[in-house]
Amino acid sequence: MVDPLTKARRKESRLIIGLMSGTSADGVDACLCEIAGFGAKSSVQIKHLASLDYPLPIKTLLTDTIANLNVEQVARLNFLIGRIFAAAALKCIEEADYTPAEIDAIASHGQTLIHLPNADHDLLPVPTTLQVGDISVIAQLTRILTIGDFRPADMAQGGQGAPLVPYADFLLFRDPKLGRVVQNIGGIANLTYLPPACTQEDVIAFDTGPGNMIIDALAKILTQGKASMDTDGKLAFSGTVNRQFLSHLMLDEYYATPPPKSTGREMFGVQYARKILDEYGQFAPGGRERLEGRESPENPKPPAGEEPWDPAGHFRDIIATVSELTVQTIVSSYKSWVLPKGPIHEVILGGGGAQNPYFVQGLKRELSLASPDVRVLTHKDLGISDKAKEALAFAILGNDLIGCIANNIPNATGAAKPVAMGKLAFP
Amino acid sequence: MVDPLTKARRKESRLIIGLMSGTSADGVDACLCEIAGFGAKSSVQIKHLASLDYPLPIKTLLTDTIANLNVEQVARLNFLIGRIFAAAALKCIEEADYTPAEIDAIASHGQTLIHLPNADHDLLPVPTTLQVGDISVIAQLTRILTIGDFRPADMAQGGQGAPLVPYADFLLFRDPKLGRVVQNIGGIANLTYLPPACTQEDVIAFDTGPGNMIIDALAKILTQGKASMDTDGKLAFSGTVNRQFLSHLMLDEYYATPPPKSTGREMFGVQYARKILDEYGQFAPGGRERLEGRESPENPKPPAGEEPWDPAGHFRDIIATVSELTVQTIVSSYKSWVLPKGPIHEVILGGGGAQNPYFVQGLKRELSLASPDVRVLTHKDLGISDKAKEALAFAILGNDLIGCIANNIPNATGAAKPVAMGKLAFP
Repeated sequence: MVDPLTKARRKESRLIIGLMSGTSADGVDACLCEIAGFGAKSSVQIKHLASLDYPLPIKTLLTDTIANLNVEQVARLNFLIGRIFAAAALKCIEEADYTPAEIDAIASHGQTLIHLPNADHDLLPVPTTLQVGDISVIAQLTRILTIGDFRPADMAQGGQGAPLVPYADFLLFRDPKLGRVVQNIGGIANLTYLPPACTQEDVIAFDTGPGNMIIDALAKILTQGKASMDTDGKLAFSGTVNRQFLSHLMLDEYYATPPPKSTGREMFGVQYARKILDEYGQFAPGGRERLEGRESPENPKPPAGEEPWDPAGHFRDIIATVSELTVQTIVSSYKSWVLPKGPIHEVILGGGGAQNPYFVQGLKRELSLASPDVRVLTHKDLGISDKAKEALAFAILGNDLIGCIANNIPNATGAAKPVAMGKLAFP
Repeated sequence: MVDPLTKARRKESRLIIGLMSGTSADGVDACLCEIAGFGAKSSVQIKHLASLDYPLPIKTLLTDTIANLNVEQVARLNFLIGRIFAAAALKCIEEADYTPAEIDAIASHGQTLIHLPNADHDLLPVPTTLQVGDISVIAQLTRILTIGDFRPADMAQGGQGAPLVPYADFLLFRDPKLGRVVQNIGGIANLTYLPPACTQEDVIAFDTGPGNMIIDALAKILTQGKASMDTDGKLAFSGTVNRQFLSHLMLDEYYATPPPKSTGREMFGVQYARKILDEYGQFAPGGRERLEGRESPENPKPPAGEEPWDPAGHFRDIIATVSELTVQTIVSSYKSWVLPKGPIHEVILGGGGAQNPYFVQGLKRELSLASPDVRVLTHKDLGISDKAKEALAFAILGNDLIGCIANNIPNATGAAKPVAMGKLAFP
């Protein structure tokens, strides 16, 4: 009998399902694709994309209370999320009119519970990362060879275990003549720079800083939970950027740190949003009082102990300022860390933030000043569904683990060497 | 280039290091062995056994505070213990005068943080198990193909994920003519029954109940931390078994449950030891007062809030009773669940409890009544170092994952089907 790994490896092309759920924990994206070849010689065709939402209590556990999970919850989540990921894969297979026996492999990112690339702990001074959604559970429930848990191998080689998507960007978007930035704006904003005719060693990739995460957290706090994001950038457009405060926020040492670098909820999450609210009064005309506002029938003061009170209309300026922070830190990253390495002909936007017109217009405005000929495109313009992209990226990483080929980009992660990231579980 | 998995699979015999650390978290055992063939046709030769102690703060974290670990501690432990397991493997390789390049694979059990074969949770009603010591970390730090995390695959098929060692018992100890019980007495006591000329399907295995765990916990409580175990059974021999209390303890429904079944710290740990102390007074002559004793200069009452006060000499009876509980529940398991299935010619003792003369003498005494011709042997009598046994067992499980062969025993774990347990990480 040929085992499923050898069988998959011997094929000219493989049907692989990539599974991804991001830190916003909305649910699982499952991307079925066909991949021929391995590494730089591979070619990819998307067949189908399916999504499966998390049940609300699980989403809540994975966002609001994630830092307080105990060992039992972590262990049970690992199995439960494995089941949900398996269900997402099976849903995708069914929708695409295949059978599980026809699929060669599943490649799962899992659900990140914590990502700590620093060793900042007294008793346990090691970097770490933890993705749950057990691959043995997925393999047993689907009867499909399953690959996953990609980040630890890179971190064990001194890397940050992130970003991993640049490897897929390299395979999908490199061009013999054009310099391209693939700019993702999720909770965090990150880029992959592909110089013209680049090799894997030439790729630069790093997190530029916050994407939607601070805006979402502030929208939630300032509307007392009524809004969870700034839809279409409406709040940002209706506010005024506070330039002084913006300059202050841009002093954060993260932006001046040369890549490779990565960040996350730990740095730019709810705590950071609260810090912004604390500091804003110092920079706003009228100071602290203006932020706290005046009580009126239209603007009643909420009971003590609840979220900060924000007088009507005022918080638009804060949202505008942190939205502009995302735009400015992205463009400033290009100036500091990309343009010194090569030309940018195209910026390919992706992620939820690519739907926010404030970001798109802001980036076009700032880029036209920095580099007039640059074109701003979407993933769709290059034939890759933006929504499928991250799940697809993990299918690509999984494909190369099947070939036992190194699939990290040490330039991007800071790892000491290329490694074949991922673990395998037989069905 | 041939990948390390295919290379290992093609060899007639493989050098594999099994890595094991039990729930007592003393440290890691590393057993280097050479295994020829796969499955029922494999043969095993032990080359070297090395051990590496955990640093004391890690041992404390893994025992006293294990139930309260938070997600950051779990994640950091996963990487830190991966490093310690890698160091144990490298130590074993060096002591045995090999180089890492000569070793075909590492097979690691990992360190169990929690094992919950029930689905007893409101929000996350799934069985689970969590072993840490990341296999990608081990693979990267040793540059050796690493296999591990065996239990989840069996649990995903409805099994208890335990016991796993019976598979190794079957390969090592089955006999064409003799019926054998391999009786391990660790924190928990468990057995593997191998009927004469048995196949894998005939194997019976289950946890008989407590081994040393309750005794160790009581010794710790009753000596206020001065003793952590009953060395050589001295306390048990010097006390008197309280037969009434013993009968009461044997009413626990675990003993009457038919196999497959498994248990652990959650059932027979410190909480159970405290319950025993609470209940003992009802059965001891003089009742509660006798347990609580009388204050005297030799026997001063400890400050309120500390461990239960035990008058001098008194707790020997408790230790004797729970030691006899281990003996009686083992022999009663043979009568209820083994002898109806086939003859027992030999009982092969193993585990730390095999060093406790109270257990050995007790088992010989009770077995001579139940089945007069049975011989009581040690692992050493059959040429397998007892100390190496569990680490060796995981090397055997890893060997069969290399061959992509099912390595669970559904009869023992309750899984719906045979599966190839374990995950693989390339170096």
